[in-house]
Amino acid sequence: MDSEKLVESLVKERSAWPHENMSLVLLVLDGVGDVRHPDFGYRTPLEAAETPHLDELAQRSALGRIIPVDYGITPGSGPAHLGLFGYDPREIEIGRGVLEAVGIDMDLRSGDVAARANFCTIKDGIVVDRRAGRPATEVSAEKCALLQRELGRIEDVELIITVGKGHRFAVIFRGPDLAGGVSDTDPHENNEPVSTAEADDANAEKTARIVNEFQRQAVEVLAGHEPLNGILLRGVAERPRIPGMEERYGLRSAAIATYPMYRGLAKLAGMELLQTGQSVEEEFRTYAESRSDYDFTFIHVKGTDEAGEDGNFDRKVSVIEEVDQELPIILEQQPDALAITGDHSTPCCMKLHSWHPVPLLLHSAHCDASGLTRFTEQTCNRGPLGIFLSMHLLALMMANAGLLDKFGA
Amino acid sequence: MDSEKLVESLVKERSAWPHENMSLVLLVLDGVGDVRHPDFGYRTPLEAAETPHLDELAQRSALGRIIPVDYGITPGSGPAHLGLFGYDPREIEIGRGVLEAVGIDMDLRSGDVAARANFCTIKDGIVVDRRAGRPATEVSAEKCALLQRELGRIEDVELIITVGKGHRFAVIFRGPDLAGGVSDTDPHENNEPVSTAEADDANAEKTARIVNEFQRQAVEVLAGHEPLNGILLRGVAERPRIPGMEERYGLRSAAIATYPMYRGLAKLAGMELLQTGQSVEEEFRTYAESRSDYDFTFIHVKGTDEAGEDGNFDRKVSVIEEVDQELPIILEQQPDALAITGDHSTPCCMKLHSWHPVPLLLHSAHCDASGLTRFTEQTCNRGPLGIFLSMHLLALMMANAGLLDKFGA
Repeated sequence: MDSEKLVESLVKERSAWPHENMSLVLLVLDGVGDVRHPDFGYRTPLEAAETPHLDELAQRSALGRIIPVDYGITPGSGPAHLGLFGYDPREIEIGRGVLEAVGIDMDLRSGDVAARANFCTIKDGIVVDRRAGRPATEVSAEKCALLQRELGRIEDVELIITVGKGHRFAVIFRGPDLAGGVSDTDPHENNEPVSTAEADDANAEKTARIVNEFQRQAVEVLAGHEPLNGILLRGVAERPRIPGMEERYGLRSAAIATYPMYRGLAKLAGMELLQTGQSVEEEFRTYAESRSDYDFTFIHVKGTDEAGEDGNFDRKVSVIEEVDQELPIILEQQPDALAITGDHSTPCCMKLHSWHPVPLLLHSAHCDASGLTRFTEQTCNRGPLGIFLSMHLLALMMANAGLLDKFGA
Repeated sequence: MDSEKLVESLVKERSAWPHENMSLVLLVLDGVGDVRHPDFGYRTPLEAAETPHLDELAQRSALGRIIPVDYGITPGSGPAHLGLFGYDPREIEIGRGVLEAVGIDMDLRSGDVAARANFCTIKDGIVVDRRAGRPATEVSAEKCALLQRELGRIEDVELIITVGKGHRFAVIFRGPDLAGGVSDTDPHENNEPVSTAEADDANAEKTARIVNEFQRQAVEVLAGHEPLNGILLRGVAERPRIPGMEERYGLRSAAIATYPMYRGLAKLAGMELLQTGQSVEEEFRTYAESRSDYDFTFIHVKGTDEAGEDGNFDRKVSVIEEVDQELPIILEQQPDALAITGDHSTPCCMKLHSWHPVPLLLHSAHCDASGLTRFTEQTCNRGPLGIFLSMHLLALMMANAGLLDKFGA
């Protein structure tokens, strides 16, 4: 039995929970992990930040580090979050079309197929500009509305068309017998004709037919709308058919995130998306207000990753300090298990996601407190949780909250 | 997708590398790991050695420990090195014949089958001395030359015969449709007749026939050469068909090792064998001179293991100090990723290989420096790399050198 199945088999019925008003909190500081580097005085942002609340909590918590996907593997946000949500990210493929659609807050359902798309300029059947002169988003939005009006359905498949940024948009295909695994209509170079989508296998043949028909009809609809007189489709992919948090673990789950990408990933895992504000304080207050409605809450803070990608050490420090300052809002709710970690590291010296293990703090009444007085990469190296794959974190949180049965007698 | 396949799928094309003059160095101090034991004052050789260069490097490096094969498993040199070369050593069998052949520097090629062999004394069809009175190597070498002259080929199979030590030699069978999985002609006890080699399955039937024919003809050729008037064959095995470093990772790879066994193992992994001298200094200089010709260099130092197997604590300390003294030769070349570790532990108190995790130091520009001031078993327990299986080390080295793409978006 693999780890995931073992955990699922041991989840207690709600009636056997230690109490009814359960709250597990997964607080993700995106990209929080960093590395010591001479450019920043061999300190990490977590080491440089003043974090009185985290320091105090660290002493009463178990520390460790998590590896997002596998040794040496740098994850994108998709696999990194799937790991935190208890899935083995090596086993689940999230196609680019799916990420694009959830990244602009589209309502992607089981069985749906999604594609990234963009407007292009076509002349005499040849793609002369794959980005249609980089139109403003409002211009693309108008054309999306036109396509939606004229092309709401092909055969028995419903089309949902939503603008992204600039020349980009996304398309959801919703209907029976659709599947991912269809090649792009985008030729990927200018001065080539539009490509014909081809199915990887028999399952995707209907999807290929619908995609080609949409491609053809869209060019008809856009005739005369130069420079936006064509479209190109890429990354046609199926929403992964994965069981959600409630189905797997019986946890009524909510997500508090300001960026569509993370809201979308949480939705793939079956979480409800809560309305919240843009600040850390507002996100934490949203948790406090909804605490009694959900058993599990994922809270996503984006600022740490953005600062890391900009190589802005001081900003990363100040986002960490802001989280620390607002932390009492969460602590006052006395969650049964609280994990504070990141989806991956984004070292300021690299300005990129990286493979480095992410610091983890896990607090509960029976967490095996480390007594370590700070929450940093170096203290986490020495904690009782060790260094392990992210996909095991959720099981540890449930164990700490008393939600897992004994295995065997 | 398993870890090996995942890594292979993410290796960047050479054109996308951070720069062209790449150098990854895997410096293996054979058996360097040790354990604290009262017989040696509860210190390990790494703790007792004076290592100013390693101490300085440790502060700027990431530390950890690697488990050669699996928890509690004591590896031979074969599996231990396969792990370091990025293979799962639990999945690859290296037969004794293959180890014997590569261990005496024979040129074993894909499709070859190899056997361990020895001279014996036969009387009236019965093996009366399985070791032929333990002849000197020179005597065996003469008989090997005789066999090679008289028995260069059987059917369409070429035979290559090379003397080992004392009564031992090895035979390579080279030709179409050969396979390992053939029982020994060695009866494994005196006063028994020579056994008939039998194929484990249909694939090995031709090999069994050739082996039996060689066994029969060799006894004819040696008639009258008492006490070396017979031969016995054991451990008939096929060279493992494993993809090499360049095929898997696109790394032009070289090995610097003085002992045939390690040269042979490196060759199985597709590395080129460089000419070098017997001393640590000469080995390191060989790296410096060849740095621009290879992307990956494996350097093997044997002395630590020999001292461990002799239980000679002081000599193990002095080999470590010798490595430390010459280390600047490597450091001056500024490798993009440098791993210093062992293939396994060989504790002086055990005089044997052991299962204990091996200290690991990994240096690169983005290694996540530990700030720990020594390179010992105990400091490595507290480093950011944790304790993990050796087979993941190569992926970490490639990640540190910027050779792996991001996984997912």
